[in-house]
Amino acid sequence: MLSNIRMLRIEWGDCDPAGIIYYPRYFAIFDASTTHLMERAIGMVKIDYLKAFDLIGHPVVETRAVFHASTRFGDEITVETSVLSCGRSSVKIGHRLAKGDTLMVEGFETRVFVGRDPLDPTRIKSQPIPQPLLARLRQDAV
Amino acid sequence: MLSNIRMLRIEWGDCDPAGIIYYPRYFAIFDASTTHLMERAIGMVKIDYLKAFDLIGHPVVETRAVFHASTRFGDEITVETSVLSCGRSSVKIGHRLAKGDTLMVEGFETRVFVGRDPLDPTRIKSQPIPQPLLARLRQDAV
Amino acid sequence: MLSNIRMLRIEWGDCDPAGIIYYPRYFAIFDASTTHLMERAIGMVKIDYLKAFDLIGHPVVETRAVFHASTRFGDEITVETSVLSCGRSSVKIGHRLAKGDTLMVEGFETRVFVGRDPLDPTRIKSQPIPQPLLARLRQDAV
Amino acid sequence: MLSNIRMLRIEWGDCDPAGIIYYPRYFAIFDASTTHLMERAIGMVKIDYLKAFDLIGHPVVETRAVFHASTRFGDEITVETSVLSCGRSSVKIGHRLAKGDTLMVEGFETRVFVGRDPLDPTRIKSQPIPQPLLARLRQDAV
Repeated sequence: MLSNIRMLRIEWGDCDPAGIIYYPRYFAIFDASTTHLMERAIGMVKIDYLKAFDLIGHPVVETRAVFHASTRFGDEITVETSVLSCGRSSVKIGHRLAKGDTLMVEGFETRVFVGRDPLDPTRIKSQPIPQPLLARLRQDAV
Repeated sequence: MLSNIRMLRIEWGDCDPAGIIYYPRYFAIFDASTTHLMERAIGMVKIDYLKAFDLIGHPVVETRAVFHASTRFGDEITVETSVLSCGRSSVKIGHRLAKGDTLMVEGFETRVFVGRDPLDPTRIKSQPIPQPLLARLRQDAV
Repeated sequence: MLSNIRMLRIEWGDCDPAGIIYYPRYFAIFDASTTHLMERAIGMVKIDYLKAFDLIGHPVVETRAVFHASTRFGDEITVETSVLSCGRSSVKIGHRLAKGDTLMVEGFETRVFVGRDPLDPTRIKSQPIPQPLLARLRQDAV
Repeated sequence: MLSNIRMLRIEWGDCDPAGIIYYPRYFAIFDASTTHLMERAIGMVKIDYLKAFDLIGHPVVETRAVFHASTRFGDEITVETSVLSCGRSSVKIGHRLAKGDTLMVEGFETRVFVGRDPLDPTRIKSQPIPQPLLARLRQDAV
């Protein structure tokens, strides 16, 4: 099974006056981690697979996160991202953010795939997950 | 019952290449909205109530959000924030973000109150919600 | 002369572990302030004037800022934005950010206007400032 | 001479509706790059050297940036950071951000070192650069 692990560092600018990470930053970390997972699944960087499949993006329609312990600037963390399940037009993805062996944060998200609305090109419209990506995501689902 | 409603505008810099809001920004909006609610409940701005109650902050330990429709730059939105329930050391808060009459996003969060850990002042430690704030938050719970 | 003044509040999430604003946030404030100035000058919100003039945006090509004093969360500030000079294809804009009567930050920026490159629509290309906007910006230059 | 080079990737969430990086993000990149330079100079991570020298931080008092070309999500970039000059209480730092061999952005910043104001611990106050760090920064100045 394809798995995606990133290592990164919590920076000063990610943190708030409590000296710990400002929690909206976790969602930026999750978002980039999902992009990396998609890129591995499809073998193209995002700017290319959006073009290849005529997509605008794959926005989150629901998300949940549990913060077990707080990270601080300078912390080196790992983020493990995996496909939890995959339907025809939406995918559930999970993130486990750890510092050493300690699980710090768990994140869950449901995403849909969207393209331009043919009736109004200034609007976005959901569409089925492109077949080659769907096949890989289903295969990779845990 | 005390209620807290903010009006704000989604800006260009809040949005991503899809032209819609970059969803981690919603959590920054929720966080500021919670601060405004707390400030109204206690009648002090955050920098003052943190000092008055010897707090470091009130970090989120769990959050969930549902994105019903996407907002775009230039959208004027309202955020209605209310206390859903309040225990001795944690509080549940809900946010309803609307554009006109249309509910766009719902957010839910559980927060704890933390101060410096007396055993290690570089660490944070949860503590009971300060009594005057607890009284107001419970009274305001929907 | 048209002038644009915004009032806003520095929030917890704008600040870093020093308890003062994380300075990249000032540029997000400046960017939104420039948008507001443009919108007043042209009488359209950004999403509409980009469409009307077939623009992708008006990115910054050079910026400078001087931080005289630091702002903290809870600070209510005003941002005064004005056109400093305006050429055929670029405009210089200045921002003065104050807390009460005290000037806290000065920002300066040069922007160009860009549309899609006709030779490669995935690329952006600078273009003259649209005539109606140019007329207003020049008239408004201090 | 000590030099500091970081490699990083521009992510979807760093970009705006024009599909290019939202320029305030560059200052977050510069800020983290300066931290990495300081950490190398002093041989301690920031959370430790702040404590060791009783500092609150080293905020920027002036900055300038020139954006020669725009980066897009997926771009792999390098950031080269160096000390330009170093006084007793302030340091000038330069950043060169490149994509391959192409210089995309240049950033310049002047920083001061601050600790708690002994007369008002809720306030910050500038102080001389700690001696061990000063020696290394001067030695490293280009």
